[in-house]
Amino acid sequence: MKRTTKLLNSIHRGGQMQARRAASSISVFSGIQPTGIPHLGNYLGALRQWVGIQDKSPESARLIFCIVDLHAITQPQEAEQLRERKMEMLATLLAIGLDPRRCTIFEQSRVPAHSELMWILSCVAPMGRLNRMTQWKSKLGIPSDQNALQEKSATAGLKLGLFSYPVLQAADILIHKTTHVPVGEDQAQHLELTREIASSFNKTFKRDILKLPITLLSPAKRVMSLKDPTQKMSKSASDPSSRILLTDSPKTVHDKLRKAITDSSLGPLTYDTQNRPGLSNLIEILSHIRRRQDFDNVAKEVSDMSLKGFKDLVADAINEHLEPIRDEYEKIIAESNREVLRFVASEGERKARESAEETLAEVKEVVGI
Amino acid sequence: MKRTTKLLNSIHRGGQMQARRAASSISVFSGIQPTGIPHLGNYLGALRQWVGIQDKSPESARLIFCIVDLHAITQPQEAEQLRERKMEMLATLLAIGLDPRRCTIFEQSRVPAHSELMWILSCVAPMGRLNRMTQWKSKLGIPSDQNALQEKSATAGLKLGLFSYPVLQAADILIHKTTHVPVGEDQAQHLELTREIASSFNKTFKRDILKLPITLLSPAKRVMSLKDPTQKMSKSASDPSSRILLTDSPKTVHDKLRKAITDSSLGPLTYDTQNRPGLSNLIEILSHIRRRQDFDNVAKEVSDMSLKGFKDLVADAINEHLEPIRDEYEKIIAESNREVLRFVASEGERKARESAEETLAEVKEVVGI
Repeated sequence: MKRTTKLLNSIHRGGQMQARRAASSISVFSGIQPTGIPHLGNYLGALRQWVGIQDKSPESARLIFCIVDLHAITQPQEAEQLRERKMEMLATLLAIGLDPRRCTIFEQSRVPAHSELMWILSCVAPMGRLNRMTQWKSKLGIPSDQNALQEKSATAGLKLGLFSYPVLQAADILIHKTTHVPVGEDQAQHLELTREIASSFNKTFKRDILKLPITLLSPAKRVMSLKDPTQKMSKSASDPSSRILLTDSPKTVHDKLRKAITDSSLGPLTYDTQNRPGLSNLIEILSHIRRRQDFDNVAKEVSDMSLKGFKDLVADAINEHLEPIRDEYEKIIAESNREVLRFVASEGERKARESAEETLAEVKEVVGI
Repeated sequence: MKRTTKLLNSIHRGGQMQARRAASSISVFSGIQPTGIPHLGNYLGALRQWVGIQDKSPESARLIFCIVDLHAITQPQEAEQLRERKMEMLATLLAIGLDPRRCTIFEQSRVPAHSELMWILSCVAPMGRLNRMTQWKSKLGIPSDQNALQEKSATAGLKLGLFSYPVLQAADILIHKTTHVPVGEDQAQHLELTREIASSFNKTFKRDILKLPITLLSPAKRVMSLKDPTQKMSKSASDPSSRILLTDSPKTVHDKLRKAITDSSLGPLTYDTQNRPGLSNLIEILSHIRRRQDFDNVAKEVSDMSLKGFKDLVADAINEHLEPIRDEYEKIIAESNREVLRFVASEGERKARESAEETLAEVKEVVGI
């Protein structure tokens, strides 16, 4: 969080004139897929940072958070479930503390300009560059040196959407003249492509229409699975005990922590990612909750505890942190509040359309369409 | 033309109930790129057929003609020129006789639903299938067995837009629930892909939302270059004498015809595509202008003429046919009429949006976005 705040503040400060000009043009954008209630990894890795940005940004900064349903459909989805999950994600974003009056929170598919810019950018995005992206390969479970068009390979079923979605992602970012994009490490490659596309567009049309966004890497880089600390905590892992959902009850959190894999070495608890990855993951989680990065010190403070006692301490810390979020979520998602939720979605759509259509008009002007 | 008329009529006739239902759901769509004043090949190959369809379709049939500027930008364009060419194309479509009260004539980029559906269809369109399309290869001048992602090949500069535009074309057609698409032979492959994508979408989402369109192949298949009768008449050929533009003056038409390559065999004029391709092309042009397909008979009727006399006859026939179009075009494109032209474009946009948004809403409903 510190790094983000510092960055935003440093842009905000500086020479009076520059500061005013620069501050008024800060625009933060980030997106999240509506694929169910977020887990602790999503929260500590991304969502909490969004709230931090909201709380510490200058008033003039625009903050735009997008529920990227058009990205979700690059994988098979069940329509009713997807619709419900979008509502759940919106409720989650409000529950963690994003303020819809301060931020623009919206569903991607409700703003046509995202798809429109995607097509226009397709006309400058090189196929060879997309082929070297690794995310579609990891989603298909194929090696990263694989070509998208090797016949009779694992790519046989590859759809255009999954292959080309980094260009839609570029459009999502560029359509809002985004200056800062908070993302996880796995998305850094896509941000690089976004900058290349923006720069290539500006060069082709001889006008600095699209802004090159800066990547804000999340400080909490990796929260690992509770059942296999070599893997990232993931919503797709088969064992639900491997992850903590933001809406898990206090008892569930305690149960999952107790079942968490840690080594059973004797002696004091130590932070040692090489030899004690499970324990170290719990120490990192506790540190992140406490907004600390000094994992070794945190480890020292608990070194005398029994493993069971430590696990309960981590569970308590998680529960204390999640309790207000959980309560707020239950209120917001309640059937009686659906009208409010829909209103928030409409307001977000209205603001996002305004922002996106402004850029699209400039883009169309220089393209000649 | 006959074939089209018969087809539309046959759908129109039939059992009373079915006829009413079927007739009311006929929807014709076709698109043309705004790449300058059309030549005789465009006109005889496509545009005249559009007017024929308008004149002979049942009143209930929807007729939608699209100036596909989003396809134009898959190749480099100069913005000001592209904008002007869109206006010129709209004026041309009106000049040849399309009635904007009867038809929906619009610019593709003004209807966001085209791009929106394009993305959604991307998620069902297989990469391997797109790789086997030949048009992007011919535009890059590479062999049709080339892979889009061969390193260090002629495809190195291939952009996503040029590779994926058959999917945008599918969206153009499917978004209007098109039943019939009049196209040239070179587009038949894309229509086949459109049907595959529609069918795959319907299967994936278990609803018959998208209609599988029928291809209406134009009867005037190929008008050849006046300077090289082995090549199609083309707007990109370097010698302007190789093509007749709809706006060429009578004198220009005569000049171009006189310079047209024909063989100088002695004896009567004959229709012989193998040995006298240049002469045969002129005979075909004359036949098409006269709405005849019996090229041999037409040849017999002129067999006694001198080559010069025959060329003047063809030039006169072309001029007689083009004169009202030319006059109308000059009126419509005049600066004083630009307001009217813009109004026609807006009206077309309004109608096209209505049609497209209806389908998009159904699509989004089943997809869950």
